[in-house]
Amino acid sequence: MRTLYHEWLSPFCRMARVVLAEKELDFQLVLEKAWERRPEFLAMNPAGETPVLVEPDGEVVVGGEPITEYLEDVYKDRALIGTAPLTRAEVRRLAVWFNVKFHREVTVHIHGEKFLKRFLYEGAPDSQAVRAGMTNIRTHMDYVGYLTDRRLWLGGDEFSIADIAAAAQFSVIDYIGDVPWEQHEPAKDWYARVKSRPCFRSILTDYIPGFPPPTHYADLDF
Amino acid sequence: MRTLYHEWLSPFCRMARVVLAEKELDFQLVLEKAWERRPEFLAMNPAGETPVLVEPDGEVVVGGEPITEYLEDVYKDRALIGTAPLTRAEVRRLAVWFNVKFHREVTVHIHGEKFLKRFLYEGAPDSQAVRAGMTNIRTHMDYVGYLTDRRLWLGGDEFSIADIAAAAQFSVIDYIGDVPWEQHEPAKDWYARVKSRPCFRSILTDYIPGFPPPTHYADLDF
Repeated sequence: MRTLYHEWLSPFCRMARVVLAEKELDFQLVLEKAWERRPEFLAMNPAGETPVLVEPDGEVVVGGEPITEYLEDVYKDRALIGTAPLTRAEVRRLAVWFNVKFHREVTVHIHGEKFLKRFLYEGAPDSQAVRAGMTNIRTHMDYVGYLTDRRLWLGGDEFSIADIAAAAQFSVIDYIGDVPWEQHEPAKDWYARVKSRPCFRSILTDYIPGFPPPTHYADLDF
Repeated sequence: MRTLYHEWLSPFCRMARVVLAEKELDFQLVLEKAWERRPEFLAMNPAGETPVLVEPDGEVVVGGEPITEYLEDVYKDRALIGTAPLTRAEVRRLAVWFNVKFHREVTVHIHGEKFLKRFLYEGAPDSQAVRAGMTNIRTHMDYVGYLTDRRLWLGGDEFSIADIAAAAQFSVIDYIGDVPWEQHEPAKDWYARVKSRPCFRSILTDYIPGFPPPTHYADLDF
């Protein structure tokens, strides 16, 4: 059985899960408490980070982007990065935008302060950092609106890893309840379309004991 | 003419430069002071970051990894990510290791504190951050030694973007003079092999006015 080692509310693990689901590949999810630095896990990934994918034949693929690119290299039926080189460059540009820029400007501040710190008993959230994240997310929501005003999906007219990378980041902040959807209708419309796709269903059923999502989190008509 | 908009001592710009050179593609380098947020540059990349590649036909490709993947998609003669999917996954794992992990644990601390702060008149380096970078780089040098003990190059038996991503990061720290080569012979041997490749020559001739490199920086027998 194909196995994905993941952590709760990791946007990069969510990206890998959605890519696997969109390509209709069976897999089991195994929760890895990466901070415990389990020797068997470090042997698979010396960086000690999730996600790690183990293929049915035992081959190991490490990291959100490498897993995505690997699945795209091997399972070509349902292309998620596109085929023309310039389309692929644009899709990858936007995937990096959300995996790096959104992550640095929003996710680290909100998820890091309000979830990770609590989960790892590292004290109260830094309210200044949370506020910075809450300010920055609006710029990214405007950018989603700008893109979907010109295209069907973020990277072009096909659903792609640009959408998956973006929705993975937004979904983490939405689980925490901090996405200001009401003031950003175009971004909300785009996210509603992503949520309604079968590949996203498993993300919406996530439930962390002691840290429940807001009621709208799994609602397709939020 | 193909143009690469770049900044001094940016590892991601250096990665793009070396990939272009290794694929023997002609290009001109244009220095972009990204922090000035020039409107024409923001129109090419709304993230406002280098590197940005403009192809001879005017097409724009944005970002270190997307440029690398784009060049690999289009100019296949000299493969730098490999061909077999698992080889590609391993090469990409190591490229991410250096582009993300090394960058976060070493480059940001040393380059950010000792170069960027000075360049942008942001005050004295934080010596605690510099010390953290100097400690962390040793772990990465040990890892380079571990890998090259088992393989000809970092990602396998072929020179690849794993080597290019790693050498781009190391070269930035080496320009600042802070790589402890003498205590890490296997890493030094690997870097000497990278330095001696024609694709790396332009990196070694970089000279920032008012911030010269140490004398060993361009020396192939350092």
